[in-house]
Amino acid sequence: MKTKPLTIGSHEIGGKTFTVFAGPCAVESEENFKTIGDFVKKQGAQGLRGGIYKLRTNPESFQGLGEKALPLVKKIKSELGLLFVSEITDPRQRESLEDVVDIFQVGTRNMFNYELLKELGKSTKAVLLKRNFSARIKEWLSAAEYLIKYGNDQVILCERGIRTFETEMRNTLDFNAVVYIKKNTSFPVIVDPSHGSGDRTLISSLAQGAVAVGADGLLLEVHSQPEKALSDGQQSLGLEEFSRFMETLKRILPVFNRELYTSPV
Amino acid sequence: MKTKPLTIGSHEIGGKTFTVFAGPCAVESEENFKTIGDFVKKQGAQGLRGGIYKLRTNPESFQGLGEKALPLVKKIKSELGLLFVSEITDPRQRESLEDVVDIFQVGTRNMFNYELLKELGKSTKAVLLKRNFSARIKEWLSAAEYLIKYGNDQVILCERGIRTFETEMRNTLDFNAVVYIKKNTSFPVIVDPSHGSGDRTLISSLAQGAVAVGADGLLLEVHSQPEKALSDGQQSLGLEEFSRFMETLKRILPVFNRELYTSPV
Amino acid sequence: MKTKPLTIGSHEIGGKTFTVFAGPCAVESEENFKTIGDFVKKQGAQGLRGGIYKLRTNPESFQGLGEKALPLVKKIKSELGLLFVSEITDPRQRESLEDVVDIFQVGTRNMFNYELLKELGKSTKAVLLKRNFSARIKEWLSAAEYLIKYGNDQVILCERGIRTFETEMRNTLDFNAVVYIKKNTSFPVIVDPSHGSGDRTLISSLAQGAVAVGADGLLLEVHSQPEKALSDGQQSLGLEEFSRFMETLKRILPVFNRELYTSPV
Amino acid sequence: MKTKPLTIGSHEIGGKTFTVFAGPCAVESEENFKTIGDFVKKQGAQGLRGGIYKLRTNPESFQGLGEKALPLVKKIKSELGLLFVSEITDPRQRESLEDVVDIFQVGTRNMFNYELLKELGKSTKAVLLKRNFSARIKEWLSAAEYLIKYGNDQVILCERGIRTFETEMRNTLDFNAVVYIKKNTSFPVIVDPSHGSGDRTLISSLAQGAVAVGADGLLLEVHSQPEKALSDGQQSLGLEEFSRFMETLKRILPVFNRELYTSPV
Repeated sequence: MKTKPLTIGSHEIGGKTFTVFAGPCAVESEENFKTIGDFVKKQGAQGLRGGIYKLRTNPESFQGLGEKALPLVKKIKSELGLLFVSEITDPRQRESLEDVVDIFQVGTRNMFNYELLKELGKSTKAVLLKRNFSARIKEWLSAAEYLIKYGNDQVILCERGIRTFETEMRNTLDFNAVVYIKKNTSFPVIVDPSHGSGDRTLISSLAQGAVAVGADGLLLEVHSQPEKALSDGQQSLGLEEFSRFMETLKRILPVFNRELYTSPV
Repeated sequence: MKTKPLTIGSHEIGGKTFTVFAGPCAVESEENFKTIGDFVKKQGAQGLRGGIYKLRTNPESFQGLGEKALPLVKKIKSELGLLFVSEITDPRQRESLEDVVDIFQVGTRNMFNYELLKELGKSTKAVLLKRNFSARIKEWLSAAEYLIKYGNDQVILCERGIRTFETEMRNTLDFNAVVYIKKNTSFPVIVDPSHGSGDRTLISSLAQGAVAVGADGLLLEVHSQPEKALSDGQQSLGLEEFSRFMETLKRILPVFNRELYTSPV
Repeated sequence: MKTKPLTIGSHEIGGKTFTVFAGPCAVESEENFKTIGDFVKKQGAQGLRGGIYKLRTNPESFQGLGEKALPLVKKIKSELGLLFVSEITDPRQRESLEDVVDIFQVGTRNMFNYELLKELGKSTKAVLLKRNFSARIKEWLSAAEYLIKYGNDQVILCERGIRTFETEMRNTLDFNAVVYIKKNTSFPVIVDPSHGSGDRTLISSLAQGAVAVGADGLLLEVHSQPEKALSDGQQSLGLEEFSRFMETLKRILPVFNRELYTSPV
Repeated sequence: MKTKPLTIGSHEIGGKTFTVFAGPCAVESEENFKTIGDFVKKQGAQGLRGGIYKLRTNPESFQGLGEKALPLVKKIKSELGLLFVSEITDPRQRESLEDVVDIFQVGTRNMFNYELLKELGKSTKAVLLKRNFSARIKEWLSAAEYLIKYGNDQVILCERGIRTFETEMRNTLDFNAVVYIKKNTSFPVIVDPSHGSGDRTLISSLAQGAVAVGADGLLLEVHSQPEKALSDGQQSLGLEEFSRFMETLKRILPVFNRELYTSPV
């Protein structure tokens, strides 16, 4: 089936352009966020990621800056002119987050949280719906149906790895699902090889695989100092690694008849 | 480790008594709910289950009666004197539900919904925390830690089946987890063989297994007309089946040094 | 469906009697094997287990004594009058093993080894067919069909734990499968809680669960010095633990209308 | 780690060349096998696949032509000058198969069949070791160690899809494993997207993904009349589909610095 591209401002997701969302796992400080945002934009990213509310398995882990991050994020993303995507973890966050994000992210732990999806049905902002790490493809599509039924058809699907018996890596990226979705639905699909492997040394190869199987974009964790990141450092690309990857990406996209977005003058 | 029993009113969960929660998947009508409640009480159940807010994979499926069920449920559970357990699916439901339930149920899809767990940390009511169908035991215990850290240590764990490669049944009950939890933690643990198999003809045997491995109770779907139930009919015991099962249960409990609760005069 | 008991000599597997196979993971020496065999017999075991050819993930691990164990095993099992079960790992072992075993064991790694099953179709000895750790129930039953189609209908099924996403224990015992098989087929089914958990402290509880869900017997690893066993020590019961377990077993069997075998005079 | 290419005759697997093995699931007849072999060679395949001994879940399914196929296969593969790969399912087949194959295939069901691996350790022919559908990467590498320890270091690994909770497709191709193996070992790795998806309409995209993540080759099921194939028709490419795929492959290989093999004059 032909993918129906989604238009957000002057950006288009799911058409001929290939969209890269990059940024830190969590927004940690204004300075740090700006440094990373500047950098990824210069390399060709069109989207900026950064967690404000973090869901962490351990209740003692860093839970994100929360609402106090909202003003700084708003300022930086406006300066940069990037699409900002961030996770919503509670329906009560919708109104305040809506003022800041261009795309709401529903994380892997909340794909089955139908009350949250119903709430996002009311939004005018797009939703990046991550697959639950144990969701069957049909269940993932049913979650997208909740968004649509409750009023929001701006849905981007994101494959971020599934849980299997394998213990060597954090997750197993499911490229079959990407190919299946592209063939059988009209949703744009992007791939998150950072969570999909949990290992920064594997990300570039997997990201190239995502391009080759037909994904419409990537969601990448990038940090200026991965070893000091407050979360997910082991799966974040450093700035140089990201830069090298973007060079490779620009080289391989044309053979798959894709290109990075060039902003309109 | 020794289980630390939980006292709710005159009931005790996790001690020498073995606790049966029974009732319909969803509250469908006052009459139907009362019929089932009366029946299960007479057979020896101490708890009554019944969904008010239902999470369904398909957005077109019956989503529960919602808040309009609250008055009828309150009336019936008071008449019967049973502990009422019902699922909360959104933190915004806490205050109204709190007036009706004795125990909040966190369903399998919401075990990783940490915002909901934080909200339940504020409650004075106990929480029955179902294991996510793909949660590792350590993650399940971390979810319980969220409840405790945010203020609520009245936690009952409920094993309800995990997702595996098997396709013959809806889920695979994990008795290893029950034994592991009983050995290594002090939480009471109950077992839900209705969801754990998805097949009413297997429930009685699995429930006996739960007793034998050391579970502290059962959560059972019972319906007066399973074939007409608005949800989960295929895994609900009919009244006669439930009655036969309770006879068996009373017969086997003593050999495991357990007994059904007898209400104080 | 009613289980069709299997008669081997004066023993019956799958009827009213409940059959315990016990012994070391691997036959290590004549003395050691005799000590353990004597002990388990006195406690009420009717079967003796002991690996001669071992399949080990690591090629450097102990691979069993191999054919040089055959004479000592034959001598000891005859003295004890126990049913001896041992794994066959290569079709070329059939003829020599046939002289020693009462029951061939097909291990979890070989359930899909159809050439081995065809070879065992020619045997007059019974086959204990372990489920592959990732086999669906239907595939397990298809493997049993291979034995039957190629000439051998003396089949005992053995559930020994499946592989899931859980990392806390070596395997996850699937009691659903036991209940399903007992309900839908006429094969006797036994349970192996040693491999099913990989943790000796969980074995007794799981074994009691096996009785309660309707299994026809148990396969247990028992060693006189588990900490010194050449393989699987961490999941082997010591002699005293085994003895305590057998006391418990004798206490609970009658409530499930089962009994240990008493040899005919 | 740098892959150590394997030289077989004038062919090299794992170097700059990218190797395509194609052919029917099973050898069905001389005419049919020759037609397919001719065709895939012309499109650029360097290897020919074709099952002689088939392992089928259902004992009533077609089990392959067996040894009567040996002469016809030998004749055709010599005429074509392709590397022939075929599965060995029993150690007793080694000597007769050795006369025909260039590469022994160990199928997914036999990766844990260590006696078979030990037997293949004696061979002078290379071994294509498919990953068991539930093997952890470390277990897969341990199986390769068996071959090496018993004398045969000509090992090619083949990822063919793993078993997960997903039910939409037959298997889930694990590209993480491919990337991991390429990074951490020196084995050549090829990918089988036919079994990896079980769906012919997904094969071309997945095969392109395999190139992009760094695989050294592909194993593809191709049949002149997929709808009439005696096995695996639903996952076999037709001749035209294969031809179109090879055009795409030739177009994308250079961007990944790879090329199809050109035979020496």
